Amino acid sequence: VSRISYVNGHYVPHAGAMVHIEDRGYQFADGVYEVIHVCDGQLIDAGPHLERLERSLGEIRIAMPMTRRALGVVLTQVIRRNRLSFGSLYLQVTRGVARRDFPFPAHTAPTLAVTAQRMHPYSAAKVAAGVAVITLPDIRWGRCDIKSIGLLAPVLGKQQARASGAFEAWQLDSAGYVTEGTSTNAWIVDRQGTLVTRPADHRILNGVTRLRLMTLAQDMGLAVLERPFTVAEAQSAAEAFLSSTTTYLLPVTRIDGAPVGSGQAGPVALRLREAYDLFVKNSAARALS
Amino acid sequence: VSRISYVNGHYVPHAGAMVHIEDRGYQFADGVYEVIHVCDGQLIDAGPHLERLERSLGEIRIAMPMTRRALGVVLTQVIRRNRLSFGSLYLQVTRGVARRDFPFPAHTAPTLAVTAQRMHPYSAAKVAAGVAVITLPDIRWGRCDIKSIGLLAPVLGKQQARASGAFEAWQLDSAGYVTEGTSTNAWIVDRQGTLVTRPADHRILNGVTRLRLMTLAQDMGLAVLERPFTVAEAQSAAEAFLSSTTTYLLPVTRIDGAPVGSGQAGPVALRLREAYDLFVKNSAARALS
Repeated sequence: VSRISYVNGHYVPHAGAMVHIEDRGYQFADGVYEVIHVCDGQLIDAGPHLERLERSLGEIRIAMPMTRRALGVVLTQVIRRNRLSFGSLYLQVTRGVARRDFPFPAHTAPTLAVTAQRMHPYSAAKVAAGVAVITLPDIRWGRCDIKSIGLLAPVLGKQQARASGAFEAWQLDSAGYVTEGTSTNAWIVDRQGTLVTRPADHRILNGVTRLRLMTLAQDMGLAVLERPFTVAEAQSAAEAFLSSTTTYLLPVTRIDGAPVGSGQAGPVALRLREAYDLFVKNSAARALS
Repeated sequence: VSRISYVNGHYVPHAGAMVHIEDRGYQFADGVYEVIHVCDGQLIDAGPHLERLERSLGEIRIAMPMTRRALGVVLTQVIRRNRLSFGSLYLQVTRGVARRDFPFPAHTAPTLAVTAQRMHPYSAAKVAAGVAVITLPDIRWGRCDIKSIGLLAPVLGKQQARASGAFEAWQLDSAGYVTEGTSTNAWIVDRQGTLVTRPADHRILNGVTRLRLMTLAQDMGLAVLERPFTVAEAQSAAEAFLSSTTTYLLPVTRIDGAPVGSGQAGPVALRLREAYDLFVKNSAARALS
């Protein structure tokens, strides 16, 4: 199957999916995005993702390009036309095309682009191995709660992580507290077994997977506490892990080279990942039935 | 004359100047830009602009898309093909097109896009009227010295200024010092006649016009001091002004509604603008001869 993308009302071969060079997304990062997981050809947690999209757009005063319901139809079409079973949809909305000038243009329709990405599920062995993270200063802007396409700082951070042989970089605010990873939320499990993650303020993106994991953890009888934590605290925690739409949950076994807890994937993280995995499969099955 | 733009080796009608939706400039703001003034069909201060482009690219490890000399040829072609006499060239370099993923892609050529904009010189009356600025918190990232296309915070700031009937917004760091405008540098003239502007650290873009004005001021026997200043200091200064490639220098006569000095365009600002105007005209004449 050749890849099909969607741009402003047209389903086009991916290679020919183009936007104008004066699209404000290209010249000003004047837009926002979402990544939605697809399992068994079904969108997972589409509701919360599209709600968040609408919130991000509202914060920067871009209109929704169409109703949430119509957007759902487009997303479903992109899945079908790509025969996508397991992977993700990426959707991006920008303020549209206008002669370059900083203020909002007067009469411009937003641009909507959607692409599909095929993925492979993480193997049990890969999950069990855990991942390493490094830490670096959080140099991002003050509104990380908006899922904006202005991602140069996270790009540089992720690149630095990979160049150091790590999977992710945890970013630190000026007081030394972890905000989040460059594309994932950050968690620890303290010695009492409580899950700790930063409150969703302006310094982090309130992950849909983050919220889902909080609910699942509570269902499992685990305590969840939203408060900032330091690197030292994370390194001496019982466990640490990260979460995102495409990684689900991955145990963090090393932080800046130091082992976390036993240095192995922790039991709480692995149980919670199993619960999330089941949630995804059940969501897909429910949508199919 | 219909507008002609340049994209990756091709001079194309502006309406058809497109890039791929997976260009990293579109999905990650993974790129940088320059705006170069054109007077009498000649590039003004092209040298410092292309030097700064190379520096910005170096800081985020994108290769120059071609030599500085070859880039100069492209820019000249865009001027000619648009028969551009007075206005500006906008050039943007991104990390290129790749399947969406945060780390740098392995084998991707940078994208270069160039557009021309026709402008009208500011009238003497408009300059003499001065402009109003508002102030707001600087929520941008920590590397404003890189001229990145991640401009959502400046876009929101400029829009807020225009909605308040002001020309520009001066952004304030957490200590209450002015960093710069959303697309201009900020200056005051103190009661002793000294020009004061923030040092070029990571919090501001080191404007080419800013540097040129510093040289011209010194040639005129004016003292220039690089240090941060507060809003209160600016409001009680003898004069204030802003500078940029396309505005040259504009007197700031009101800050958050309060008059600066006499509330009229100041004599130092007007003399310095005249000197800059002459510098532009002489540069163009020298290039033509």
